[in-house]
Amino acid sequence: MTKQERAARTRTALIRAAAEEFERRGYAETTLNDISLRCGVSTGALHFHFDSKATLAATVEEYAEDDLRRCVATARAAAHGTPGGALGELIQVSHRVMDTLSVNPVVRAGVRLGFERHRSGGRLRQAWQELVASLLRRARQEGELTDEAALDELETVLTALLHGLVMLSQESLCWLEPSRLGSFWRLVLPRIATPQAATLLASASGPAPVQ
Amino acid sequence: MTKQERAARTRTALIRAAAEEFERRGYAETTLNDISLRCGVSTGALHFHFDSKATLAATVEEYAEDDLRRCVATARAAAHGTPGGALGELIQVSHRVMDTLSVNPVVRAGVRLGFERHRSGGRLRQAWQELVASLLRRARQEGELTDEAALDELETVLTALLHGLVMLSQESLCWLEPSRLGSFWRLVLPRIATPQAATLLASASGPAPVQ
Repeated sequence: MTKQERAARTRTALIRAAAEEFERRGYAETTLNDISLRCGVSTGALHFHFDSKATLAATVEEYAEDDLRRCVATARAAAHGTPGGALGELIQVSHRVMDTLSVNPVVRAGVRLGFERHRSGGRLRQAWQELVASLLRRARQEGELTDEAALDELETVLTALLHGLVMLSQESLCWLEPSRLGSFWRLVLPRIATPQAATLLASASGPAPVQ
Repeated sequence: MTKQERAARTRTALIRAAAEEFERRGYAETTLNDISLRCGVSTGALHFHFDSKATLAATVEEYAEDDLRRCVATARAAAHGTPGGALGELIQVSHRVMDTLSVNPVVRAGVRLGFERHRSGGRLRQAWQELVASLLRRARQEGELTDEAALDELETVLTALLHGLVMLSQESLCWLEPSRLGSFWRLVLPRIATPQAATLLASASGPAPVQ
């Protein structure tokens, strides 16, 4: 392994360790010492890569944004052309975002840091809301939505619900389980989807919760 | 005004100023100096009342919890005996919680601090979820809910939605407007409420959003 490869590997390990500490303690309570200890590197090595806690936090946020964008792009590509149209795509993307959050501490830390450091979901929140709005518009054009389904109301509820699940996942990761988001889809699909679309989507809204 | 009255008044003003700073900057970025400046008292006077930022934050959290409990108790008393039964009570309580958040920076700061300092909504989250569960059970017993309305799913969705609205309100207070929560009730009521209950509740789900 060359020196450059070793350095790149250490940098990646530091970002992961930082995410785990930020997620566990929050930004305020995390020290650079906690991060270097978790990563098993000296504070000198940490300072070679990152000059401050703020720089490290900003890097975690960037990585989280990249990971989430990639997750959404992959989910959209996989859903493309499958039965269910734009509404099916929205359901699948929403479930994949929850999956990514549940397995990826960098993404969870990034979302948490966004709110702690800038009091805002910022670009991620905006990107998510735009995606929801555009898929709902397409679903309406494609005739998958009932007349009662008001697009802006659905957009509001879905954006708030996703943020709530993410916020509650700080307390327990069980809030990211497919059955939780599935509860929402099972609740609203019969109201917003036309009977034809609802039949196609019945299996897409996630498993029923274990009673 | 006696010395004790002045001291009590300063203490209350400090709690309010601390809440405003915590809400605006987050726990990590707020200093005791910011708080004493906003309150217009010396840091010496601040230290007479609170020995650390952590003590001040814990006090803001306690006040927020008291304010929210009082808001819920008042809303429940007002809803008692009005048409709409337990489901109507739940809708009214949920709207009053949003109102309280929108006008009371101590409550907003308390919720934010709960997640930043303990990564949990803690007792507040638990109290909210228990209230939702007990009102839904009563609504089922009173025959207001359709057979399709699964109580645990409704509890999950409503808890997540409320937390999401609160989280997003850090970015903009517009997320606390009655039309946002009303979107949710308009979306789910026709699905979960029996036709008789839905008629009674039509006016209780909040104003339609401005288009």
